[in-house]
Amino acid sequence: MPTVALDLLGGDGAPDVVADAAASLLREQEPISLILVGPEEQARDLLSARGLTEGRLSGGRPTGGPLSGGCVALAHASRAVRMDEDPLRALREDADASVSVAARLVAKGSADAWVSVGHTGAAVAAAVLELGRIPGMSRPALAVVVPGVAGRVVLLDAGAAPDATPDLLRQFAVVGHAYAEGLGAVDPAVGLLTIGSEDGKGDQLRRSAHELLRDSLIAAGIRYAGPVEGHDVALGERAQVIVTDGFTGNVVLKALEGAVQWAAVRMGAAYGDIGPARGVVRETATSEFAGGMLLGVQGVTVIGHGAGSAEEIAACVRLAARAADAGLARRTSEALAGGRS
Amino acid sequence: MPTVALDLLGGDGAPDVVADAAASLLREQEPISLILVGPEEQARDLLSARGLTEGRLSGGRPTGGPLSGGCVALAHASRAVRMDEDPLRALREDADASVSVAARLVAKGSADAWVSVGHTGAAVAAAVLELGRIPGMSRPALAVVVPGVAGRVVLLDAGAAPDATPDLLRQFAVVGHAYAEGLGAVDPAVGLLTIGSEDGKGDQLRRSAHELLRDSLIAAGIRYAGPVEGHDVALGERAQVIVTDGFTGNVVLKALEGAVQWAAVRMGAAYGDIGPARGVVRETATSEFAGGMLLGVQGVTVIGHGAGSAEEIAACVRLAARAADAGLARRTSEALAGGRS
Repeated sequence: MPTVALDLLGGDGAPDVVADAAASLLREQEPISLILVGPEEQARDLLSARGLTEGRLSGGRPTGGPLSGGCVALAHASRAVRMDEDPLRALREDADASVSVAARLVAKGSADAWVSVGHTGAAVAAAVLELGRIPGMSRPALAVVVPGVAGRVVLLDAGAAPDATPDLLRQFAVVGHAYAEGLGAVDPAVGLLTIGSEDGKGDQLRRSAHELLRDSLIAAGIRYAGPVEGHDVALGERAQVIVTDGFTGNVVLKALEGAVQWAAVRMGAAYGDIGPARGVVRETATSEFAGGMLLGVQGVTVIGHGAGSAEEIAACVRLAARAADAGLARRTSEALAGGRS
Repeated sequence: MPTVALDLLGGDGAPDVVADAAASLLREQEPISLILVGPEEQARDLLSARGLTEGRLSGGRPTGGPLSGGCVALAHASRAVRMDEDPLRALREDADASVSVAARLVAKGSADAWVSVGHTGAAVAAAVLELGRIPGMSRPALAVVVPGVAGRVVLLDAGAAPDATPDLLRQFAVVGHAYAEGLGAVDPAVGLLTIGSEDGKGDQLRRSAHELLRDSLIAAGIRYAGPVEGHDVALGERAQVIVTDGFTGNVVLKALEGAVQWAAVRMGAAYGDIGPARGVVRETATSEFAGGMLLGVQGVTVIGHGAGSAEEIAACVRLAARAADAGLARRTSEALAGGRS
């Protein structure tokens, strides 16, 4: 049974919404153990208000607790990194910020994965500082699973590295491919997000990256789909992994979210009932799409939306548990090591 | 009555689909005169097959023809620029490529606007060569009107200038604002597309552009909405004009198109009938969204989708006619001249 450390203090609705997510996970059939990371007394009160009592950590792992499914233990953290703080400074000043404590639980083997829906920059920094990057990875990338029309598309980077180089895009391709395989994709093809599907189109970064990707992916035995375009992210026919810099990836991801909200309004009006359209939006938001997987660090790290609902936070935890079960950190390390040989 | 020169040879379905668009425009109540640009004999046959005969150019303007609404005249062009050609080389080799002839009709005053749904690079190059840039504009930008939830959003650049500088983004802001006003927006606010809505976030280009935009737009009496995010493009609450480099803009635009197709499939399934969802997609594709307006050249130039249907091409022509009526080229020139003073 995987154990996931959950940052109780991250996100707009913290800690209540996070505690709601924990309670719902602990009542599910699929057993997941949790370590709630936050001020201990507050965490205990939040559990108790939801009819739950905490177990304890035994041999570093949660044990006991009231439920047939997973157990829940607590790990103390003093505070969250606020949205207006410089994350690196905050983490250096306070070793017991919730993201640091949660990442450290993974580093020392008490948890198999950790999840935060708080300050993205702080979560990335905590992952790098506490877990370390995997060899060969210059900067970690946030990978999002888009439920494309033709199947799942792993889009990365969704915002961790706004300025990328061709070699960084190559690293993204390798770890993104390993992630897609870990989620069950068979021989996924990697595409380079650009404009126009002819070779040699795009901006300077893309023109430089295209040949490097083509040669290095072929050498690593990975299918290269070549240049793909914006519509391929939601359609998913041409590539199952799509790489781009974190600026473009974040803008695209949010553009997709806006477009789906737009579609719910317009299509809901066309059908005379927005209910089913809203259902599609909610179902998507609580799928694997709920959280970004931070690839390139030595431990499973999922970062979700700050505005996420309890259902979305629970979806992040399930995604983290699945990636831990699939040996994601090992897979990405091995893939990058192979890619360099 | 505005006269629009229409490139008969541009687009995947040319010349038949373009001729269909022309026939449908000429039968509409709102009178638009057309000059069809392509091989004369072929054009005549295409019209005749649609029950139309051409008028002639009188004093440079179309006159006569069979219909109560607009008239149609022909202007000879030898060939299209093929998708696999280098546009600049092709235009230099052959002065009678259809995009050059069409743009030249605007330059010499025979038409008020021109439209092509062919090779985008060739159309941009023809516009620059035949019409010239407006003073103060380093590179023209393609502006697309997104029908946002809260109202119209002018997004630019959608692909003409993949690599931008902070000053080019400032130019985009000024001409995009003038375009939005020309379409009827009252005091539209300009936003800078970036990641995270806090000041100082984003990649290098955005961090440099933010202060320049803020100071220069305020000085020009234009509202600056500050940093906006990907979802703002389809929502339209925070800004009515959104500026970005042509790489990001093109990727976002196509991501939106893919997302709307995705939504039609998923939401159609949720309602058990894809018909109304497809209706929304079609309605959007045949709105102002059908074509990109090339801003920063001395004449109204609309570039549409190569794969566009006759309805979409007709929508491009209507958009061109409207922009000509609104004095778009003069508006953008004056705005840039004002912005520099």
